[in-house]
Amino acid sequence: MKIVKTIDEVRDAVKELQREGKTVGFVPTMGALHGGHLSLFRRARKHADVVLVSIYVNPEQFGPNEDFSSYPRTLERDLAFCEQEEVGIVFTPDDEIMYGSGKKYLSIEIDELNTYLDGGSRPGYFQGIALVVNKLFNIVQPDVAVFGQKDYQQFQIIHQMVKEFNHDLELIMAPIERAEDGLALSSRNAYLSEVERALAPEMFQRMKEAVNDIQNGLLEPEEMLKQHQKALAEKGFKNDYLGVFSLEKMAPVQTLEKGKRYLLAGAVYLGKTRLIDNIIFES
Amino acid sequence: MKIVKTIDEVRDAVKELQREGKTVGFVPTMGALHGGHLSLFRRARKHADVVLVSIYVNPEQFGPNEDFSSYPRTLERDLAFCEQEEVGIVFTPDDEIMYGSGKKYLSIEIDELNTYLDGGSRPGYFQGIALVVNKLFNIVQPDVAVFGQKDYQQFQIIHQMVKEFNHDLELIMAPIERAEDGLALSSRNAYLSEVERALAPEMFQRMKEAVNDIQNGLLEPEEMLKQHQKALAEKGFKNDYLGVFSLEKMAPVQTLEKGKRYLLAGAVYLGKTRLIDNIIFES
Repeated sequence: MKIVKTIDEVRDAVKELQREGKTVGFVPTMGALHGGHLSLFRRARKHADVVLVSIYVNPEQFGPNEDFSSYPRTLERDLAFCEQEEVGIVFTPDDEIMYGSGKKYLSIEIDELNTYLDGGSRPGYFQGIALVVNKLFNIVQPDVAVFGQKDYQQFQIIHQMVKEFNHDLELIMAPIERAEDGLALSSRNAYLSEVERALAPEMFQRMKEAVNDIQNGLLEPEEMLKQHQKALAEKGFKNDYLGVFSLEKMAPVQTLEKGKRYLLAGAVYLGKTRLIDNIIFES
Repeated sequence: MKIVKTIDEVRDAVKELQREGKTVGFVPTMGALHGGHLSLFRRARKHADVVLVSIYVNPEQFGPNEDFSSYPRTLERDLAFCEQEEVGIVFTPDDEIMYGSGKKYLSIEIDELNTYLDGGSRPGYFQGIALVVNKLFNIVQPDVAVFGQKDYQQFQIIHQMVKEFNHDLELIMAPIERAEDGLALSSRNAYLSEVERALAPEMFQRMKEAVNDIQNGLLEPEEMLKQHQKALAEKGFKNDYLGVFSLEKMAPVQTLEKGKRYLLAGAVYLGKTRLIDNIIFES
């Protein structure tokens, strides 16, 4: 496994592989790797000859009151994890390499797709992600890039960016990985106390019930979802959002049509820990 | 000379050359080619093995009251011109290929650099240019790209984009080409009536005089530049701006320091025709 830090190094490594006729599958991460990432790596390996993982905690996607400074940084463990999972190249740039020290003049604005869900709750979040992913795509120039369904809105925005910016790569979405009790795997799960960790799966349980109710004919689910939020609040969750959204435009849907595909997405806090989850379903 | 229209075709052509170890020098144009473009092509050939020219009138960089529909479109003549100048590949996409028919969600915003000069006079102009050039860079993936000094602010914004977006190419600025009487070559010169064409060089004459005065010690040139604008107005020019700007931040400078480099830039209308010009000088 090759570990590279600079832009020239990672470009040289990728171009050497591509000259040999090998394809490169890219998985951008913020480290604190877990089983969810593993599934991304495996998906990348399925679609490309060599897996390239970047590990970089991107300051641009954290709000001023968010957990940038406390975000788990576990580089040694992450590298061992990558080695074990037969990752070919790990790219570990620092802030100077990614953003330099000069003033930044350009930003990427996102219309509509960014209005609800995390885009609504976390101002600047997806602009920061678009900025760093656009940079990483141009730095790495992979053949394939893999993102998880867990951040479905992120996937949708990056999908749109690939299309509108003409990035020359194939974008792939990997399914959500879950613990045995159903909790979606996330680096932020490490923040949870034992009590919170025991509570956490209840959100997904209720989301599954909600999808079930919808599939059984409840095509105006708003009231039902409010009841679930109320129940979660009583257990100690702090609700951010829970709703049904269109898969392409990321807009809330009040009245569902039978036989169409939608996204049920939720975000809660347990203590200070933010948890998100979603289910793509056919009504 | 290869003429290609689709994204796949141009990418295949470029990648084939790069596989053969050849470098590609890219000159994006809106067609209506003239001697100014010729100088860009030659500059590209100096820095790369094969010259690739795109011809595309980008609707996104025209304001609602600007000359998009009347902009000169002379494809056959342009192709003959390219052939004669030993251009290797011409890329002639249409709107469907460049922007598709779906809704656009993303835009590129530009801070500060875009406040004065054409950025101030033409709202959305440089956002439209950044959008299409970002797309073209990702489509073509050239080794070198060449832009003219005549649109110095454009060069500076693209220079910043290459840096902040990590485009993997070398950006080169080619000097302004002029007619014998000093008028900067421009596709829009074709709009000028005979009388206007005879008047047009006066702007550059006065800009040269202004630089001369500054170099002779006039370090607060505002009043002098106003006099030139007044004289131009009396001759029938409509003034937009004429001023001294910093080369990096594109900000107006009132009091110049001796021995520093600046941009003198002007924009006028002759009838409905907009003309811009500039001089980079040391005070």
